Amino acid sequence: MKGFTLWFTGLSGAGKSTLAEKIEEELLDRGMKVELLDGDEVRTNLSKGLGFSKEDRDTNIRRIGYVANLLSRNGCVSITAAISPYASIRNEMREKCTNFVEVYCECSLDELERRDVKGLYKKARAGLIKNFTGIDDPYEAPENPEVTVDSEKQSEEESLDTILAYLESAGLIPAGADGKAYSAEQEKDSVSRLKEKGYI
Amino acid sequence: MKGFTLWFTGLSGAGKSTLAEKIEEELLDRGMKVELLDGDEVRTNLSKGLGFSKEDRDTNIRRIGYVANLLSRNGCVSITAAISPYASIRNEMREKCTNFVEVYCECSLDELERRDVKGLYKKARAGLIKNFTGIDDPYEAPENPEVTVDSEKQSEEESLDTILAYLESAGLIPAGADGKAYSAEQEKDSVSRLKEKGYI
Repeated sequence: MKGFTLWFTGLSGAGKSTLAEKIEEELLDRGMKVELLDGDEVRTNLSKGLGFSKEDRDTNIRRIGYVANLLSRNGCVSITAAISPYASIRNEMREKCTNFVEVYCECSLDELERRDVKGLYKKARAGLIKNFTGIDDPYEAPENPEVTVDSEKQSEEESLDTILAYLESAGLIPAGADGKAYSAEQEKDSVSRLKEKGYI
Repeated sequence: MKGFTLWFTGLSGAGKSTLAEKIEEELLDRGMKVELLDGDEVRTNLSKGLGFSKEDRDTNIRRIGYVANLLSRNGCVSITAAISPYASIRNEMREKCTNFVEVYCECSLDELERRDVKGLYKKARAGLIKNFTGIDDPYEAPENPEVTVDSEKQSEEESLDTILAYLESAGLIPAGADGKAYSAEQEKDSVSRLKEKGYI
């Protein structure tokens, strides 16, 4: 089984974590080895003490990339879902990580501020949160991402299909629901991971 | 292929890194997926900025354990070679990591100070290095390690054999040099990793 790094990038609220979890579930269900390195989880486990300056953000991203590559070069799919606002550091990770696939979660700032599910944009506008990407901290959109999804124009299901279609066409995952190509032992692993994650 | 975490612990100079590299080479040669998380490499990639207080050491070890477990639960062998002086945090990692194998590299302080290959013990005795494990910082030897090797009483080759014999008896690695059980593709991977590491 090929390992690869599926690197989500996009503004807060653009759908990175939700899509990352859906993909994780789908790939586990297809019998693949998968780890989701979510922004928050990584900050807890690897980057406690780092802030949101450019330098600290870069350090955080480099740590995620280091771990993502350890996994992907050993045949595991690593999914990352940090904002990762800077293009240069994303490109550094592209060079570093085995089979790097960048997924740009597009969504206009207007729409994100309208939704504001967690109320973070309001707080950032009011100056209660500093260094908030898109408000008082930059976001550099990818120029040539492997996949672009857009939560303003696509349903979650459509975005998911877009990503899966790319991964299938690139030969990184077995095709379709019938493409399960794994042993009984791997299936047991899959089922236990899906349960552990609360997906089933 | 089963993943496991081979956790070396011992004083500076007791042979952790050397043995870890030998084991890495041997397991790669047997067609296994292996990552060596050496103390120095991890401090560069994951723990820059951390010092050598108990709190910082514990944070460093927890990060290594987090990464080691991500790898081992996905069928990779992760080898760690940090001093990891505190028993409680090693036991925490034992609980956390899939198939945890503790290897205690024993060696008396007298002997280590006599060898003092890097001159670090002399500097620590002179107060030029602070918080040096074994001199002015504690080392808590493991009470029930899966494997103990002793560089005062054993040759490197004997220590290596002791570790491999344990791993074979525990069913964690295929037996002996004839036990290679991998595909042509895995062999290609192995050879390229061995070359990359400068082992061949």
